[in-house]
Amino acid sequence: MKNAINRQIVLAARPVGEIGQDVLRLVERPVPKLAEGEALVRNQILSIDPTNRIWMNEEDSYLPAVQIGEIMRGITAGQVVESRSDLLKPGDLVTGLGGYADYWVGQGQLMTKLPGGVSLEASLSVFGHIGLTAYFGLLEVGKAASGETVVVSAGAGATGSLVGQIAKIKGCRVVATVGTEEKRRWVVEQLGFDQAIVHRANPDLRRSLELACPSGIDVFFDNVGGEVLDAALSNLALYGRVVLCGAISQYNNPGEWGPKNYGELVVKRGRMEGFIVMDYHARAAEAFAALSLWLKEGRLQYRAEVIEGLENAPLALQKLFRGENRGKLLVRISS
Amino acid sequence: MKNAINRQIVLAARPVGEIGQDVLRLVERPVPKLAEGEALVRNQILSIDPTNRIWMNEEDSYLPAVQIGEIMRGITAGQVVESRSDLLKPGDLVTGLGGYADYWVGQGQLMTKLPGGVSLEASLSVFGHIGLTAYFGLLEVGKAASGETVVVSAGAGATGSLVGQIAKIKGCRVVATVGTEEKRRWVVEQLGFDQAIVHRANPDLRRSLELACPSGIDVFFDNVGGEVLDAALSNLALYGRVVLCGAISQYNNPGEWGPKNYGELVVKRGRMEGFIVMDYHARAAEAFAALSLWLKEGRLQYRAEVIEGLENAPLALQKLFRGENRGKLLVRISS
Repeated sequence: MKNAINRQIVLAARPVGEIGQDVLRLVERPVPKLAEGEALVRNQILSIDPTNRIWMNEEDSYLPAVQIGEIMRGITAGQVVESRSDLLKPGDLVTGLGGYADYWVGQGQLMTKLPGGVSLEASLSVFGHIGLTAYFGLLEVGKAASGETVVVSAGAGATGSLVGQIAKIKGCRVVATVGTEEKRRWVVEQLGFDQAIVHRANPDLRRSLELACPSGIDVFFDNVGGEVLDAALSNLALYGRVVLCGAISQYNNPGEWGPKNYGELVVKRGRMEGFIVMDYHARAAEAFAALSLWLKEGRLQYRAEVIEGLENAPLALQKLFRGENRGKLLVRISS
Repeated sequence: MKNAINRQIVLAARPVGEIGQDVLRLVERPVPKLAEGEALVRNQILSIDPTNRIWMNEEDSYLPAVQIGEIMRGITAGQVVESRSDLLKPGDLVTGLGGYADYWVGQGQLMTKLPGGVSLEASLSVFGHIGLTAYFGLLEVGKAASGETVVVSAGAGATGSLVGQIAKIKGCRVVATVGTEEKRRWVVEQLGFDQAIVHRANPDLRRSLELACPSGIDVFFDNVGGEVLDAALSNLALYGRVVLCGAISQYNNPGEWGPKNYGELVVKRGRMEGFIVMDYHARAAEAFAALSLWLKEGRLQYRAEVIEGLENAPLALQKLFRGENRGKLLVRISS
């Protein structure tokens, strides 16, 4: 890989509010030499996730904050081109935190080899962190059970659309909140959700959820936060669970808003619980076996939107925060 | 009881913000005749609890809202003076929702007979709803374990002081937030808490809690809400639990505030859970056996402040919300 140019997108400034033009900057650097135990991966696909925004903040979260000047952290899938690791050989397909960059140089043990038959796209969605998030968040944290009412926010999103479908498979009544009429139709007509509510410009989301969930919400799987969370809390059923997966509506203004209806957790003996998908990686096989079966049976579907070119990753991130993506948002770095 | 006058305090108006003079009104009514199955109780002691304020709101909570003109709901202890219930005879000591009134007329099955050796005062504190709240909230909801750090807000209050002592007995490190220097000294010097922080006028409660809990907060037992809850959330340990018992700082302005740091539940894989003590009444014997033993061993103590006269119950309630009581606040209706 001598003389190869490695384009990297670095964090140039911490965003205040929305992710502006000055936040991410593309730089070109040479591909470094490998140290013992390392491998060099040609990143092919980059996953654009809401949590990327959290990593940009100054404070550490469940992972250390990305420092100014560092490569922006991101989950990638790609192919090993050189290896000084016993674990990997050229040609292997891997996923991991390869970053917003053409090439990823890292320790072999940080790279996860793709199982046979899994495409690079799928390794960043249903057979990756998205599938694990939906599966374990709904079933392990939320403990959704047959006959219960599950509400999922951002129900047409990468995670939410899987959550709703898994809930249907498990015998739940499923209601989604979504951002657009197109998304509403998709989840109801294509994915079989019982109902979906377009939350934007809904004058009384609380009432809409009440009508959609006459016996209350047993599990609320939240990707959005804000008024959607408050509306769900006020409709919580007795012993209801709120699964905190994300809060995309709040990431641009961290720490400014809190759920005013959290007192409903007392009245309803409810539970609100957060989780991080990394904690479930050791149990990935269990989830992937189930997801794989449901896909084969035609009971599960997913969609992805692929944006071409690493240089467009900052635009893709903005698109995600405007809710304009359809399904899992990916950036193709190379083919 | 012919010609006996029954003073009752009725809800005259719903409070907006603080409980003003117009909210509760004392009226005099005759003692009604007993129907079959009912008993007449001379209320002797009335428990003044933060939750009384919740019952005054227009919306139903875990119990129906008190209606305008109805006797104000309250937990009392007293003596049966007449009975048409097979369950009770004159002279029996009972507790229950006897209300802000001289006399309580109700179905015998709604009255709980006091076990032998339990005083009326104790039946409204350590051997009543307060003891059950502390015991089950800390151990069942919070799952506090030896070696963990427990923080309790309103740590010198009726419930909080028991929570902290039970946590000490169970081998936890205990830090309280309290409202005054007198309370701080009491919980540290008399009850053996490891540390207490006077939260009023503390310029950086978050930092104070961080210093007091160097390895984070494993269980936060919250009676207060507001900035105390946010400060605790920001210091939550990995897999920390927030036990939502109450939010006295917010009851006068319901629905106006939410915990801005609730996102810490995601980062720390935390859980915030509410409960209602009524759900644990069936298991009261288990808690009372433990509490009784600890009292005998001198490992548990409690204090009560008794205000004389039913007519002073509204003032007592205001005192409670100003945090001016020392220990369990009671009103003596008759002796």
